[in-house]
Formats: sequence, C-alpha cells, structure tokens
Amino acid sequence: MTTPVLFTIFGASGDLAKRKLYPSLFRLYKAGHIAENFAVIGTARRPWTKEFFEQTVIESLGNLPDNPRQAYEFASHFYYQSHDVNDTEHYVALRQLQAKLGQQYGTQENKVFFLSMAPEFFGTIAKHLKSEEIVNGKGFERLIIEKPFGTSLATAEKLNAELAETFEEDQIYRIDHYLGKEMVQNIFAVRFANIIFEHIWNRDFIDNVQISFAESIGVEDRGGYYDHSGALKDMIQNHALQVLSILAMDTPKSFNEADVRTEKIKVFQNLKKQTNEEIKRNFIRGQYTDGQIDGHTYAAYLDEPNITENSQTETFAGGVFFVDTDRFRDVPFFFRTGKRLTEKGTRVTIVFKKATDIFGQHAEQNILTIYIQPTEGFSLFINGKEVGSSFSLTPAKLSFRHNADALGNSPEAYEKLFFDVLNGDSTNFSHWEEVKASWTFIDQVVRIWQENQVPLHLYPAGSMGPQAAFDLLESYGTDWHWKPDTWYRERGLL
Amino acid sequence: MTTPVLFTIFGASGDLAKRKLYPSLFRLYKAGHIAENFAVIGTARRPWTKEFFEQTVIESLGNLPDNPRQAYEFASHFYYQSHDVNDTEHYVALRQLQAKLGQQYGTQENKVFFLSMAPEFFGTIAKHLKSEEIVNGKGFERLIIEKPFGTSLATAEKLNAELAETFEEDQIYRIDHYLGKEMVQNIFAVRFANIIFEHIWNRDFIDNVQISFAESIGVEDRGGYYDHSGALKDMIQNHALQVLSILAMDTPKSFNEADVRTEKIKVFQNLKKQTNEEIKRNFIRGQYTDGQIDGHTYAAYLDEPNITENSQTETFAGGVFFVDTDRFRDVPFFFRTGKRLTEKGTRVTIVFKKATDIFGQHAEQNILTIYIQPTEGFSLFINGKEVGSSFSLTPAKLSFRHNADALGNSPEAYEKLFFDVLNGDSTNFSHWEEVKASWTFIDQVVRIWQENQVPLHLYPAGSMGPQAAFDLLESYGTDWHWKPDTWYRERGLL
Repeated sequence: MTTPVLFTIFGASGDLAKRKLYPSLFRLYKAGHIAENFAVIGTARRPWTKEFFEQTVIESLGNLPDNPRQAYEFASHFYYQSHDVNDTEHYVALRQLQAKLGQQYGTQENKVFFLSMAPEFFGTIAKHLKSEEIVNGKGFERLIIEKPFGTSLATAEKLNAELAETFEEDQIYRIDHYLGKEMVQNIFAVRFANIIFEHIWNRDFIDNVQISFAESIGVEDRGGYYDHSGALKDMIQNHALQVLSILAMDTPKSFNEADVRTEKIKVFQNLKKQTNEEIKRNFIRGQYTDGQIDGHTYAAYLDEPNITENSQTETFAGGVFFVDTDRFRDVPFFFRTGKRLTEKGTRVTIVFKKATDIFGQHAEQNILTIYIQPTEGFSLFINGKEVGSSFSLTPAKLSFRHNADALGNSPEAYEKLFFDVLNGDSTNFSHWEEVKASWTFIDQVVRIWQENQVPLHLYPAGSMGPQAAFDLLESYGTDWHWKPDTWYRERGLL
Repeated sequence: MTTPVLFTIFGASGDLAKRKLYPSLFRLYKAGHIAENFAVIGTARRPWTKEFFEQTVIESLGNLPDNPRQAYEFASHFYYQSHDVNDTEHYVALRQLQAKLGQQYGTQENKVFFLSMAPEFFGTIAKHLKSEEIVNGKGFERLIIEKPFGTSLATAEKLNAELAETFEEDQIYRIDHYLGKEMVQNIFAVRFANIIFEHIWNRDFIDNVQISFAESIGVEDRGGYYDHSGALKDMIQNHALQVLSILAMDTPKSFNEADVRTEKIKVFQNLKKQTNEEIKRNFIRGQYTDGQIDGHTYAAYLDEPNITENSQTETFAGGVFFVDTDRFRDVPFFFRTGKRLTEKGTRVTIVFKKATDIFGQHAEQNILTIYIQPTEGFSLFINGKEVGSSFSLTPAKLSFRHNADALGNSPEAYEKLFFDVLNGDSTNFSHWEEVKASWTFIDQVVRIWQENQVPLHLYPAGSMGPQAAFDLLESYGTDWHWKPDTWYRERGLL
C-alpha cells in the first residue's frame, strides 16, 4: 500500500540522517510503500542547495539503487530549507514550502516530522510547529523523536510537557531502534504463535531470563556524549527495559496496537520497586581498563578522547529486575551491557526450570536463546541420551539461523519503524507511560551510584565485565548462559 | 563394570550371529564390559571345529579390532559344539562343556542363552535345558529370543507356555531390536528430561502422533518368510507398538526397570479396542506393483522370488491406534510401514495443536520430529516472524543431528541389548503382557484382512504407499508431516 506523505526532517545534514534515514526511506520507496506522492523537506542550519541535498541523499544510498535513474527519481522528491529553530520567520518559510509541496505531490496533508536533533530544541520546534500552523490538524500529523527522552524523570517530564502542547500522545513516536529489529519482533511470534512456549512462559516453568547487550568497541568518537550518560542510561533505561517488557507481558487480547500497548505498560507499571539496599546488591557498575582483544591492546576508558579526568561513568551495567505480576513474580530478569567486552552480540536467554528428575541424573535446564544481533536466530538446548551403551543425559543444541538470502532482505530497523509510522502503528515505539516508569526506576539507581554507595568495578578491555556481575547471578543460583567463544576455547570445547 | 558370564548361542552358524551377535559381543569386549572371565559356546547342526568357529568370529569383526592380537584373544573365548536340538545326548555334552568352561573362565555360573533359531525349536530347547540341568538355578540365567513371538495370540501363548516351564518371565528377554536403537531410547530423554515437553505431552497439547517405518528395498531374499508374514506382523505388531508405548506412557515413578515396565504395560492394556467397522476404516493394507526409484525400475511384489502366485500379502500397512488413558484419550497415533517406498527412514513426528491465535494468521502447528534411522537427531518447527517490514508468521526449523564422531561410537542395537541383559535390565525388551495385548489387537486386523473385507490397495514401487493411507489422515484433519525429498523437489521447495 502506498501512503501519500510529506516528511520534514530536522537535522537533515546530520550523520544519522545520512547513515540511516535516507537509505531507509529509499528501501520503502523501492518496496512501493511510498511512491509518486511523497516529498521530503530537509532542514538544518547549513545553507545547502536542493542540488547539494539531492546529491547527499544519492551518496547515502550506496549501492542500494537498482539503477542510477531510480536514485535520481527518488532524490528529486527531496527539498532543502536552511533553518534556525529559534527564528519564527524560518517556520513561515517552512509552512509555505510545505503547502507548495503538498499540492505538487498530492500528499493529502499527511505529515511526518522527524526530530533528529539534540532534545533541548524539541520544545522550541514543537511550539513553533503549532504557532505557525505547520501542524494544522489536516491529514495525519506524526512526530518521530530519537532517544534520549530526557536524562532523568524530571527532564523527561519537562520534555514530554513541551511536546504535549502540540502533539497528542498517540501522535508521538518515540523511537527505540531495538524495537525495530527483526528478532526483537520475533519474540512476539515465538511467545504467542507456538503452543510449546505459550503455556510454559511463566514462573512455573521459567527459572530466569538473561538479556545481554555486549559491545566489543569502546566509546569511539562518542566520548563527550557518553561520559555524561553511561551504560545505564544509554542502554538499560530504554532498550533493555523495552525488550524485557515484550518478554514479560501477559498475552494481549489481540496483536493490535492498543492491546499490545496495554500489556506492555502493565509490565512497566509492575516493575518491582527495590529498596536502596536491594539496588546496592542487585545493580553492578563497571568501567574498562586497558586490555587485549584478539591480540590488540586497547586503552582504558579514562584514556579515551573527551573523557573527564577520573570519570566515574560506568561503561558496564548489569543487574536484575523483577516484574510483580502473577505471571512472573520472583523470576529474575538479569541484564548486562558493556563496552570493550570479549565479543559483540545481543541475546536473550530464557532459562527454564529443570524437569522432574526420574533419571536421578540432574538433567540440564532447557534453554531458549534468541539471537538478536549480529547474527539472528534461535537455539534451544534439550536433553537427549548420550550416544553409548549406558543411559546418560546430555544436552543437544537445536538451532536455527536465518539464511543469508533472507537476511539480505532484512529491513533496517529504521525502515521498519518508518513503515509503522506511515501505518499509524505505534506498537514498536515507547509510550510515555513506559518512559516514565523506567526513569522512575533508573533514577534511584543513578542516585545510589552517583553518591558512590557502591564500588565502580574495573574490568579489563576484552573481558566479559567485572567479576561482580558473575557473582550477582551466582547469588541467585545461576550463571550467564551466554559465554564468549574464548571461554569455550580455553576449556577445549571449541 | 565387567560381568563374568558364559553365553550359549543356538544357531551360531547363522547369518544373524555373524552379522550382529559376534561384532556386538566384541564391542562389549573392547569396552571392558566382558573380559577375561567370559566364554561363548556356539551350537548348530554343522560339524565345525573350534578353529573354524574362531576364524568365523574373527572374520565377522571386519575392521573393528584395533589390532589382530585383540581379535585373536577375543575369539579364543569361543567354543563350538555340534548339536541336534532333539537329541538329549547332545545336551549332556553341552552341560559338560558348560561346566568345564565355567571353571576355566570363572564365569560364576552366570549364563545367557541366545536362541537364534526358528521359534518351533524354542520349546524343545527350553525343555532340555531344564531336564539336563543346563539351567541349574546357580548364577543368573537369562534367555534371549528373537522375534517373531508367535504369529497370532494363540501361537504366542503356546510358545510362551513352553518357555515358562523352564524360565520365569523376568528371565526372558524378548528382543525388539528397535528398542535398542539410540534414538528410540532417546524418546525417554526427550519426554522426561525436558520441562518444555514434559508438561505438554498430553491430549491438551498434542494433536496427533505419526510413526513411519519406510523402506526403499523390496522383500529381497526374504520372500519365503515375508509372504507368510506381511508388513503388519513384521513391523507393526512389534516395533510400531513398542515405539508407541514409549511415546504414550505416563511418567514412570523412576527410570528403573519395574517402574518403566509398569507404565509401558498400561499403554498396551489401554490400547483402545476398535469395532470391526472401525478397523475397516482405520487400517490400510497395500502391495507394491512395479515402479521406479531414482530412475531404476523395480519388479512388482508378485514378481519377486518365492512369492505365492496372486499373493494377498501386504507390503504396506498403515493405520491408527488410540490409547484410552487420561493422557492420550482420542489422540490418533498414526503409523505406516512399507517396502519399496520413495525413501528409507524411521521417524516419529509429534504434531502439537495450534497456539491461541492472537495474530489472526493461522500459525502452523509446532512439530517435533525424532529421526531414528538412518540419520539420528531431532527437529522442531516453531513459528517465527518472516523477515520483512510487515508481521507475517513463518515456520522455522530448529534441528540437531548427531555428529559423525558421536555416531561412530553409536552402539549397535544388539550391543546395547546384550549390555542390558548382562545388567539384568529388561526395560528395552518386550514383556509377555505387551506381546499378548498387541497380538490380541492385531489378530482382529489380520482376520478382517484375511477375509478380504477391505481392499488390498496397490501402489507403485517408489511411491509413499497407497492413496488410502493419505486419505486416512485427511479424514482426521491432518496429513503425513514426513514427506519424501521428491515431494519437496516436485514443488520446487528443495
């Protein structure tokens, strides 16, 4: 289905726009979801011409187009408007361009605004969009914003109040690009389209859940931003809790947006509040020192560019959440994220309880792993009989990886998210209630960490984080089921 | 653990002994389960010398031995006694040899008798073993017999009564070599060591079960025997029902022999009796005509050697059993077996019910397949999300095959069964109650077929059996989930 629409992208000259937004729009164009009657207004401070903008867009496509003409046709829909977000006159110009292009391309007043800028400008932009009647109540009007949604509950509330003056909650699409990933969406399918999992997805059968976001890179050129954020706000407040909500939610009445949303929000609202003492025990922070990955030596976090001297910012965060619902009460949801870890990967691991032991052999637990990136797929450990005369149990790994052909067609997360916005489907975006609940929880951890009530554990680059993150799981009678290849190699298992 | 034991093999010059028994004993010898204090008496009509017998044994080992000395040492434990089963004097000689070897090898009066002969001799042999005090109540005394255990309930009862004069039920080991197969034993592990299956292994979650024993060969040189037996007696009365009993049994209190036996027998005793009308609908017989497999033309069954003119013997049997327990009431257990089918393979397929449909997309059923031979392993179909912008369900196949290394160590079924006999473990043998119940059921089918109350469906060599076997499953709202490669190839799916 083709949707007539006019996109306005604030921050059109930025890195995200070039790396992700233009290629994703092009993929939608190739797939026919947008066609003749779409146009894009790009705005930013720089004084670009339409020609230069078009060329920038074409460049960004790399070898995506099937032929040059296709790229030129696509880029011809892009218009540039130099813009100072504080200058009211500039919004007037924007309105005029919007009106002209709307007519020229027949976009039926449908508008999508994408704010790819620092959040401090969101309020000003939103206010002007309304006062200058760019948002005019005609057609659909949807606002897409990128994280971070504040840096605390207070700042998030302020930001939300500013946006709320112009947009209703159901017009605001807060991107969490993890929610656009194929395998995160696959969690819905795995949970609700398979009878073998549907009926055991609860505290009677699940021992614990483990969510790992591991990066092998360091802070790279993001030191300035990262040093003020840290792993907890960068990854856990948003991505980890969003993934957790999909894993922990009750069965929605249907897969429509409202039903899914209702169940997701319930998870956030039932995130179990932990006492300060529990937070101190249950949340681990770490920072990498120098170390080796694959024979290459990497600098310590403190020696990276743009890092404050003696920075206490965590590059590793690990911990455990609980969801106080009948389905999952007392089941630990462990998470960890860190930079400069042994290897890169995002995985969700469901550790089931043990079966009744009729064999007297302490069978291993069934373990379902959902591989989110860089590889995508599933694996399931089930117990079988060891080959041989006697009867010994041994785990067998059933696995499935998407084949390369399918992955070639795997949509970019942004493509998927744009597609959803065009269809008015906010299932895969963060609702304000979710953002609010997660900041409420995270604020408490931030405070305890900022007051240095718990140690900042150091870990060498190339390890899987501080020992404390392993001790935490041991204290709950389990361990991280995802171990890096080096772990197996050291034990001669690989 | 090493067990002192004296084996006496009746039919020592036969094909089975050479192909299976001697190599299997050698594997136990290599593994140290039998060692210095074991000996074997081989008996048959032929006047072999010990030297010739030893050489025959060595020949049978192929390249199993690590070095020639090992083979010679093993074979030196083998003694030959020419024997006429009806001649009492010969049993006296056997007793004397037994006494001599028992002393020489320190076998502690432990005795295993293996009757690798036509069943009509079983009674005579058993009677003499007792009257001539070869079975003397000292040490353990165990009798191993091969199928068939009769050809009807009446003949099976007669055979059993004859054996019962000399051996108690718990001394009789009725071999069903399918029960010795790794992957059949694996069914125990899959069912009872995995919480994900343990709790859904019942009529609430399982839609139907499908057991296929497919052969691509014809009757080969077994025409004379086969023409008097047929597929139903050759495969279903024993192997299929044994496999069914493991699939359908309730959870035993423990994995010990008595507990497992109790539950298996319960299945046989609860095999739902079907009316004659039901039998006519639910059981399909077929016979192959000429046809092609892989471009090679094969003769019709009626043109094979040693087949009676216009023989009505079935080379294909398919049908459905029900087990009238709370666990599986009304769940169809389909089976099929046949010669000259498209491809060779033994597989068990568990077809689960559909999940609650929140997606409105008719998700496929979860399907667990256990591959028994020639490949061994599992596969599990689960529904995932199809790669792409929209949300469509698609089945993903998680699979596991034993690796070649492990399979190299995979014990022969007979090795496994000998091992169990040495340990007095009859879990993997057929109990009289099981044999009795299965003949009771099968007799009824045999009678209806012999009276030609249903058609003998013809099917071309190289097909997967008669259409009627497909129609049967369709009448239950399902179809055979194992389709041969050619089926996929014709549809461009392979």
